[in-house]
Order: sequence, then structure tokens, then C-alpha cells
Amino acid sequence: MYDRRVPAEDLDLLPLARVPRQARSREKVEAALAAATDLVRTEGVEALTLPRVAEHAGLSVGAVYQYLPDRDAIIAVLVARYHARFEEVLDGVVERVRRTASAGSPDPLADLLDEVERIYAEEGVARALRAVEGSGPAAERRAHKDRMTAKVADLLVLTGLAPAGRARGVARLVFTAADGVLHEAFGLEDDERTALLRELRAMLRGYLAPAD
Amino acid sequence: MYDRRVPAEDLDLLPLARVPRQARSREKVEAALAAATDLVRTEGVEALTLPRVAEHAGLSVGAVYQYLPDRDAIIAVLVARYHARFEEVLDGVVERVRRTASAGSPDPLADLLDEVERIYAEEGVARALRAVEGSGPAAERRAHKDRMTAKVADLLVLTGLAPAGRARGVARLVFTAADGVLHEAFGLEDDERTALLRELRAMLRGYLAPAD
Repeated sequence: MYDRRVPAEDLDLLPLARVPRQARSREKVEAALAAATDLVRTEGVEALTLPRVAEHAGLSVGAVYQYLPDRDAIIAVLVARYHARFEEVLDGVVERVRRTASAGSPDPLADLLDEVERIYAEEGVARALRAVEGSGPAAERRAHKDRMTAKVADLLVLTGLAPAGRARGVARLVFTAADGVLHEAFGLEDDERTALLRELRAMLRGYLAPAD
Repeated sequence: MYDRRVPAEDLDLLPLARVPRQARSREKVEAALAAATDLVRTEGVEALTLPRVAEHAGLSVGAVYQYLPDRDAIIAVLVARYHARFEEVLDGVVERVRRTASAGSPDPLADLLDEVERIYAEEGVARALRAVEGSGPAAERRAHKDRMTAKVADLLVLTGLAPAGRARGVARLVFTAADGVLHEAFGLEDDERTALLRELRAMLRGYLAPAD
């Protein structure tokens, strides 16, 4: 079986055709997802077929089929997991800001961008998944954007970077613009990427300066 | 033949399998492209097959085949035309700013956003083509982004909104962020779209304030 470690996570939250209950079944699903992630990174979206994923994971087609019956199912689960990862990062930043609010918050915007850049920089996995994203279900992309916008809005209100009445509109702009720019940045050469991310920070800082 | 008027343009610049020379052939290609645009708007990308486009244009499959042999060819030409349209809008703004530079330029950023919003608002055609864009050739998307970035950089230098040394990086950010936000905006309800576009303008104005 393909033995690459995947981050612990709640398989119950993923849109699997069937939720694995036994530890052994859960390991198989995790192995299949790790193999699928590796395949999309090394060979692209085209490699995401049930037989290829099962083979790469060292599992039988039948074992994978019950949880991830076809290409669309595999893509939907990878995209959901990718989205969940970004949402967790943002939850973490919101949580830290909430805890340190009384102690005077440091720089949540920089924290957030650092973490997102770290995810994107990891072995090309995020970039590959980002490429898959467009093939995933549109409803899930919409729901993810809405959840991210709500979290960014919380962060803006907590940090005083936007008044509550305007926070949702500002958050939608910040998430949409940053998402598009990060996507673009990680297709560029190192020096161009660095320059683009520096400009993104400058723009967001100017826009999000605390109004007093 | 499908008789909807298409804007005059140079068919020679489109990636057609063969460039039509005679007036009659050019009319057929324009009718096929108008029909393809209409199909993608009303029925989505899936409708873009050679037989459907020929039928919708009132042409024989053979007549269309020599210029637009298959779905990929049809998509590539629609995307190229869609890109050309935005590049023309930007050229127009640059040209106007260049002419009025001595007379003191009014507000080129507002002009540009007004024109782009006008294109997007037109009957859903731009939105539909934007959806097709992801299916087009990646090299053409890259080349379009590079051309748009170069034009925006010219505009920033002409208007004094960015110093020449930093213009390219700033232009890349502005184009990427605005492109992502506009795409998002035209999938929203009217009031949310208005709010998002208002925030986009506020962010760009803050970022692009003339440094003196």
C-alpha cells in the first residue's frame, strides 16, 4: 500500500461515496487520497482515474471503488480537502487574533499571508490541487468562497481593519483578489513571484489601514 | 444563415485553421463565430461542437469544418477574440490618456473600469466567454495576461501612478486582482456586485495614488 503519511483529518467531513468506519478502511481511503494527490502533482489531473489511483496506492480497484467510484468523485474529495485546509489556516489566524486581542494584536494580515504562502510553496501540491479546483463542483467552490469570506470578515472586525457594516464587502474583495493573485504568483519564476507577492501585501495594507 | 451582426474585426488575427479570403467565406466564418458565441451564452460550453455550431449558424458542417474543425478550435478562436476585445479597450484608454496628457488627464482608472464593466454587463456574453476561457489553450491565456500587463504598465507610467522601475510588478498585480474580482462580481446578484466593484475601485485608488 502507498504509505505516504497524510495529515490527520476528519474523513467524515469529506464528500465520500461512503464513509469508512473501520480503522483499516479509513487507512485505505487515506492511502487512496494520498496517492491521488501525488498523481495530480506529478502527472496532472488526467492521471486521476480510479484504476490509476488504486494502482498507485497499492490497493485493488474494488477497495477504492466503494469510497471513490470515479474521477469526478476523486476530484470532488481532493478539492473539498484542499478547501478545508485553507479554511483551517484562516480559523487558526482568527483564533490567535481573538486570544491576543487584549494583548494588542501583532500583524494578522502578515500572519495569514505567510501561512497561505507556506501552503502554496509545499512541493507543488497546492498548485496542482488549485489546477484541479476548476474541475470540481461549482457549488462547492461557491460554498468555500462564502465560508472564506465570512471568516475574513470576522478577522477584519476583530482587528478593527473594517467597520462591521462594511466588513463583508471588504472581505469578499480581499479574498477574491488575494486568491487570484496567489494562484497567478505560483505559476511564476521565483523573482517575479516575490515581486508580485510584495505588491499584493502593499496593496492590502493600503486598503486595510485601520480607519480611526 | 444565422444573421446576428458581429463587431467588425480582423479575422486574420484569429487562430483559424485556415484564413478565409473571399468576402463570402469571411461572412460564413463570422456567422459561425456569432452562432458559437450565442450557443455558449445560452447553452454553455458543452454546446460548442462543430455540428451544433454549423446548425445554429445555418451552414453546412463542411463549410465550417475547414476554418473551425473541432470543439478545441472553436474554443481557441472564441477565447482569442474575447482577449482581443479587452486588449482593444485598454489600447483605447492608453491612447486617450496619451492624447490628453498635456491637457491634464482626467481619471483613466475610472474610464478603464467603466469600459470593462460595460463589456461584462453585455448580455452575459462576456461572462459565458469567461467561463470558456479556462478550456482554451494555456499558452494563449499566458500571452494575453502578459500583453495586458504590459499595457497596464504603460498606462501607469503615462499617468504617473507608478514609477517606471516598479510599473511592471504593479501592473501585474492590478491586472490579476481586477481580473479575478470582475470574474467573481459578474456571478453575483446586482447589489452584491455593485458593492464588490465599489470596493475594488477603493482598493485600486488607494494603491495607485500618485506618489509625489
